[in-house]
Amino acid sequence: MNLVQRKIRDYVPIVGEDEVMNIIELASRVKGAKITHVNTTKNGGGVAEILKSLVPLTRSLGLRTKWEILDGGENFFSVTKKIHNALQGDHSIAITRKMEKIYLSVNNRSAKSLSLDSDVVVVHDPQPLPLIESKKSGKWIWRCHIDTSDPAPAVWRFLRKFVMKYDALVFSRENYIPRDVRGIKVFVRHPTIDPLSEKNRPMDHGEVLDILERFDIDPNRPIIGQVSRFDPWKNQLGVIDVYKKIRSRMPDLQLLLVGSFAGDDPEGKEWYRKTIAHASGCRDIHVLTNRDGVGDKEVNAFQRSFRVGLQLSIKEGFGLTVAEALWKGTPVVGTRAGGITLQVINGVTGFLVRDLREAADRVEQLLRMGWLARMLGRNGEEHVRRNFLITKDLRNYLRIHIELVKADLGSEI
Amino acid sequence: MNLVQRKIRDYVPIVGEDEVMNIIELASRVKGAKITHVNTTKNGGGVAEILKSLVPLTRSLGLRTKWEILDGGENFFSVTKKIHNALQGDHSIAITRKMEKIYLSVNNRSAKSLSLDSDVVVVHDPQPLPLIESKKSGKWIWRCHIDTSDPAPAVWRFLRKFVMKYDALVFSRENYIPRDVRGIKVFVRHPTIDPLSEKNRPMDHGEVLDILERFDIDPNRPIIGQVSRFDPWKNQLGVIDVYKKIRSRMPDLQLLLVGSFAGDDPEGKEWYRKTIAHASGCRDIHVLTNRDGVGDKEVNAFQRSFRVGLQLSIKEGFGLTVAEALWKGTPVVGTRAGGITLQVINGVTGFLVRDLREAADRVEQLLRMGWLARMLGRNGEEHVRRNFLITKDLRNYLRIHIELVKADLGSEI
Repeated sequence: MNLVQRKIRDYVPIVGEDEVMNIIELASRVKGAKITHVNTTKNGGGVAEILKSLVPLTRSLGLRTKWEILDGGENFFSVTKKIHNALQGDHSIAITRKMEKIYLSVNNRSAKSLSLDSDVVVVHDPQPLPLIESKKSGKWIWRCHIDTSDPAPAVWRFLRKFVMKYDALVFSRENYIPRDVRGIKVFVRHPTIDPLSEKNRPMDHGEVLDILERFDIDPNRPIIGQVSRFDPWKNQLGVIDVYKKIRSRMPDLQLLLVGSFAGDDPEGKEWYRKTIAHASGCRDIHVLTNRDGVGDKEVNAFQRSFRVGLQLSIKEGFGLTVAEALWKGTPVVGTRAGGITLQVINGVTGFLVRDLREAADRVEQLLRMGWLARMLGRNGEEHVRRNFLITKDLRNYLRIHIELVKADLGSEI
Repeated sequence: MNLVQRKIRDYVPIVGEDEVMNIIELASRVKGAKITHVNTTKNGGGVAEILKSLVPLTRSLGLRTKWEILDGGENFFSVTKKIHNALQGDHSIAITRKMEKIYLSVNNRSAKSLSLDSDVVVVHDPQPLPLIESKKSGKWIWRCHIDTSDPAPAVWRFLRKFVMKYDALVFSRENYIPRDVRGIKVFVRHPTIDPLSEKNRPMDHGEVLDILERFDIDPNRPIIGQVSRFDPWKNQLGVIDVYKKIRSRMPDLQLLLVGSFAGDDPEGKEWYRKTIAHASGCRDIHVLTNRDGVGDKEVNAFQRSFRVGLQLSIKEGFGLTVAEALWKGTPVVGTRAGGITLQVINGVTGFLVRDLREAADRVEQLLRMGWLARMLGRNGEEHVRRNFLITKDLRNYLRIHIELVKADLGSEI
């Protein structure tokens, strides 16, 4: 396991001595506790990103934290992708008996091979949800990172049986909690970003300049951009339309569309192709992906280079790319989807917009009023510092661990 | 006395709980101590500005702080202005017997009318320097805010007699300490700005917009500017030349020259007229002063509106207008005069330049590379937070008070 050796005290300059002391104090109350996180991948996706920071941090605080991977194989993941989409609101999806069988048998098998004997087991997202069936001891938490405000009823009915066996549930937003979840501890915790990860760490301007030049982006002309997966919900085509609208009045403007996709994801590939086609002919639109050599460091530099960040998603889980941009002082113009409204405070850290026309107007306003962009960007940084940094997530996990573990020991919390 | 009732805890969100606790702890060690500050004006100038914040703050911390004004009259101030200029390096100035007499008699008279019976008396700048002759008790500090690195020898010889009678001296920079000051406690302390004063407090963008519009400045086009007294040393004419150079390539650019001057200061008036003449014909150069209704609030808004701040002074005391601009996220292009080099870290918080040509190049670079301007501006804010905020000044004063007062009591420091 190749985890960065970051320590809690590394965060003092960012969140202050108080917050760090607070975390150290909380950790001391569950020192030595065995915590196991389970998800399906070590790399890629928001959950892996959070665990990469959270696991070594809780270890450095004296908790015995493990990170287990449920590795399911192709059939399994094709089933769980359907489950994922059904939970996120696609009511047309049905789960067949055969699919249920694949889902449960992989979980059953994994329950034997994984090391799940802990004081607290944190199961992330629906793929490893049925592991709860093998629970022998400890407290089990299901951490749901997706939008389950309107799940396909049959699929939810099937999953709910497992969900209700957990000791506690954690959702990312209040309205993601399915209505029929009652009689069980439920926490709402926003996801967060790690200010010391490669994607968010401080960067000097020489690095930014090098990266812009490497991708043939002109550092002397204004840049706007959106970072997100290639996926129709992210509305890259809308972003291009907004750009073209503004460009007719500001011919200097450049657009960056940055995202990643797996080579074996046919949907992503197709949407990437559509995006390229929609941008056709315009030399100043740069569509860049992991396949062009864009990694965390490049995303970091790009987000710093944007005069304005865009997040015009039609549907959004939480949209942490907004927090990533704000953290770098970039004001963001976004739609009212998912968690964007928690991050973009209208007129304070950016602007919330209803349609592409309004998006174009706001972006143009921020491009012309450099002083306004700077003021909103600085507010955004502060907003993220207070609400969306990994230290907050860590503190919340510790509080939940204390609540669950100490309740058992009968001691006060 | 009309002092703002600001309390030390108001600074927690800005400098953190730790720094504030540190200050409270230091203050508790000299609680009840009688401190008297003496200067020559309640309003106008950097010293009055610092005392307006420092006096109520130390009071709220339990020190019995007084602020006394030595009011000398016209003849006196015409002498002390000469002394000031001589100390700042004008070797052509000579002090006649008659001038010495005016200077000393006003100080003698004031020593009787002012209430100087304190544990610590802090005398600011040369005007009230000879008050030391009346010292009966307590520890006396001379706080020199001006550049005394190369004083006119005869004038310095005359003043040195008084200087050497103090218990401690405080200068703003290491190299301001005259060479023949020995055998006496000397501290070097940078001046600072108050992040909660009207000139530096947080402002929302509606306020900035209103103020720009009130002064007929277009908020949609880029603005650069310099804030400083009307005085040849501040080089307003050079700033205009830099602006004109850039404007030939960026016709949208606007320039703001903001400063204050007293109606009875003939030099300031003349330099203001010269500045206006030099700007002649260009509608996008705005020369604005207190006489146009520019106060602290307006300066605050203007500094927030600059894409780039300028400080092209030929000679500079410390140049706190640089810290004021940086605090607002504005990168600054400045010369290497006085304290500018401590505030503008080349390539980090702005750029240091040798001549007007280089200044124009750097300003233009920052205008084109909006991302670079933002990065340097954010560094600047952090640099000011760590080094140039009033809380640091307060902490330093408390340490000096402890050192002087406790030394007397023989207790440990």
